[in-house]
Amino acid sequence: MTDQQVVRPAAISGFPEWLPEVRLVEQHWLDVIRAGFERYGFCSVETPSVEPLDVLMAKGETSQEVYTLRRLQEDQNDTSDAKLGLHFDLTVPFARYIAQHFNDLVFPFKRYQIQRVWRGERAQEGRFREFTQCDIDVINVDHVPLHFDAELPRIIHEIMSELRLPAWTINVNNRKVLQGFYQGLGVDDPLEVIRTVDKLDKIGVSGVSELLSQKIGLTDRQVGACVELASLRGTDASVVEDVTGLGIRSELLSEGLDELAFVLDSLSDLPTGSLLADLSIARGLDYYTGTVYEGKFTDWPGYGSICSGGRYENLAGSYIRRNLPGIGMSIGLTRIFAKLLAEGLLPTGPASPSDLLMVLPEGREQAAEAAATAGLLRRRGLKVELYHQPDKVGKQVRYASRKGIPYIWFPPLSEGREHEVKDLVSGEQTAADPETWQRP
Amino acid sequence: MTDQQVVRPAAISGFPEWLPEVRLVEQHWLDVIRAGFERYGFCSVETPSVEPLDVLMAKGETSQEVYTLRRLQEDQNDTSDAKLGLHFDLTVPFARYIAQHFNDLVFPFKRYQIQRVWRGERAQEGRFREFTQCDIDVINVDHVPLHFDAELPRIIHEIMSELRLPAWTINVNNRKVLQGFYQGLGVDDPLEVIRTVDKLDKIGVSGVSELLSQKIGLTDRQVGACVELASLRGTDASVVEDVTGLGIRSELLSEGLDELAFVLDSLSDLPTGSLLADLSIARGLDYYTGTVYEGKFTDWPGYGSICSGGRYENLAGSYIRRNLPGIGMSIGLTRIFAKLLAEGLLPTGPASPSDLLMVLPEGREQAAEAAATAGLLRRRGLKVELYHQPDKVGKQVRYASRKGIPYIWFPPLSEGREHEVKDLVSGEQTAADPETWQRP
Repeated sequence: MTDQQVVRPAAISGFPEWLPEVRLVEQHWLDVIRAGFERYGFCSVETPSVEPLDVLMAKGETSQEVYTLRRLQEDQNDTSDAKLGLHFDLTVPFARYIAQHFNDLVFPFKRYQIQRVWRGERAQEGRFREFTQCDIDVINVDHVPLHFDAELPRIIHEIMSELRLPAWTINVNNRKVLQGFYQGLGVDDPLEVIRTVDKLDKIGVSGVSELLSQKIGLTDRQVGACVELASLRGTDASVVEDVTGLGIRSELLSEGLDELAFVLDSLSDLPTGSLLADLSIARGLDYYTGTVYEGKFTDWPGYGSICSGGRYENLAGSYIRRNLPGIGMSIGLTRIFAKLLAEGLLPTGPASPSDLLMVLPEGREQAAEAAATAGLLRRRGLKVELYHQPDKVGKQVRYASRKGIPYIWFPPLSEGREHEVKDLVSGEQTAADPETWQRP
Repeated sequence: MTDQQVVRPAAISGFPEWLPEVRLVEQHWLDVIRAGFERYGFCSVETPSVEPLDVLMAKGETSQEVYTLRRLQEDQNDTSDAKLGLHFDLTVPFARYIAQHFNDLVFPFKRYQIQRVWRGERAQEGRFREFTQCDIDVINVDHVPLHFDAELPRIIHEIMSELRLPAWTINVNNRKVLQGFYQGLGVDDPLEVIRTVDKLDKIGVSGVSELLSQKIGLTDRQVGACVELASLRGTDASVVEDVTGLGIRSELLSEGLDELAFVLDSLSDLPTGSLLADLSIARGLDYYTGTVYEGKFTDWPGYGSICSGGRYENLAGSYIRRNLPGIGMSIGLTRIFAKLLAEGLLPTGPASPSDLLMVLPEGREQAAEAAATAGLLRRRGLKVELYHQPDKVGKQVRYASRKGIPYIWFPPLSEGREHEVKDLVSGEQTAADPETWQRP
């Protein structure tokens, strides 16, 4: 206790930090996600938190606010670290990883990657400056089988179900359908139309129609067809007939519709509503070329996407003379987790992983017995805190209660007496054998 | 395949990155470490990767090369992010965490923290710019029971044993013994003597003796006693008698010797050689006040410490008007892992977590049967890759072999036939029931 000035530290905006009881839930989520990815045979990859700036900028992602590093005591003549930036996603580092280790990997290469990423943006609801992404991607030489277009959303669906997230929909579309449709319509620059229709969320049908007509110069018939396509939804392959019914034809459109039908057919066993073909989804990034995904909470349609991804061509093209297309999806762990926490929907539990607290009795022999019993229970797989000093039983019980430890163990106070366990919820106290006791 | 220039990316020095088969081992290590910490009831905490610079500098750790952040497209007038730095250890963020969340935590607060840390130093053997630390600390109001001085090295010992590390010793000492001894000797500035004796490793007995005599002005008798104390080693409490035998007395020395004896007594069940009282160990950091630890590989004494820690006073003192002493230990995961990898001592296994590869047969019905069987096996807890397309069996076997997947599953090709599993090591192929099959 000194008189020096103390300054209570404050949270840094956009850099989330959790209390132990919340972190315990986040750990459970991470375990579920990892197990979900591994159940399908995806291996773990981690990359450094930094990449050279030219790697981060290779796809011209200048819209991302990258954090660069600088040493505090940097020599003016040595600015080598200034060419390093914290990664802003896990796809760009993964493409670099593939190129760098190409000869040591087995293709199709299937990996998951769960890491923090950083963006130097202004923090707001659902947007953080440091957050955890959970990515799953498949990259192959020349061609990624369509198989994965259905397998990836199935994996993500399984994981989100196991996490018991509130109602969501994974919206799926295919960029070939959009591009092929616009080609069939006789549009000159289909990509520009895609980028414009992608703004439906923000500026609505009238805003998009105006841009298509005024800025891109589409005819009224073309604008009408674009708007009509974007309005189509469907939970099964009948949506393909709806698109065909619009009367537009092109080879690319047919290819895209076949792919979309394959995805919908393959996932027809998923619960109704969890997967939806939504012909308005485009995903802003220009690098997507086929199937695209975008997951949303049903009850918070304005909240950012909770998972997303798609098929892309050759992200590693600047590093290696191989054609390496891929497909990937990403779960926005922090975004989902923080939302549920804010909504009070996260069932937070104890502040300790312990199964039980071992009371530490007075007396050298009794204390040794307690320590030995704790050791035995640990070897049997239980998580056991040994209380740190002999103390009033009430104080030890209160410690366990405050931490949410469900059981307290009383070692025998004299020879011939039995061990006893108290259930802190029911208050019941019964004899127990450390060789066989299981947490009920 | 384009003619554009391609630049194969290179590793960034000091930022380690592993191939999947190595990462799988690292994951296993992380699982073992986490389980070891949780087995004793320590809860997980993670903090942001960054702290305000004044937090990082609070302990005057100017010798650490801190990385600060800067936004690539930073507004000259907004340099708010420049006041953030990547943490260089996990103790400083933990002290800040304790102060910030003081009212929401249960004390003694026992946490573990496994995260990456960053140091802007030149990379060399055992020193990285980005690496993973595994910390375990206890912080309490006013007083941390001596109990933890023995519990922490026991936990670390258990974990390092389970990881089957090559022979190591955890050296233990007590700063009170050193300081009390020097006080008893009549030395004016015991801390300066501690800092000097700490250089024994680097400059040897003669170098240290010269400094003690020339720079600090100790008498020959004092220098002799300091050197003699530093030469003492012992695996049990008899080392305390050796210190007492040197004939120096002080209250602080007695207190320190009692604490050291407690630690040695409490851990007397550990295998001989794994714990050693070493009276030369001081740990450079000024904030240690009692028990200190430093683990080393037996066969590589010159390699950096593989685990370390100690007791400290009130690291959170600049944030909160409470006396919050603590004790902690840290496993240098990356340092240990990279050394074993370099020495060829890391038994790396498969490049995939999969238990088995499910062959995908030709034919819609057969393929559906394969997918359904894969789903059933996954629900039973197995990790199953479904091959991504119908292909020659030989090719599917080769894929599994190259990834180190131990079993291949052949679904029946026609009704009434049986499922079969091939063990890729023995080559044996037998009938199998997907409802009951277990990996042998």
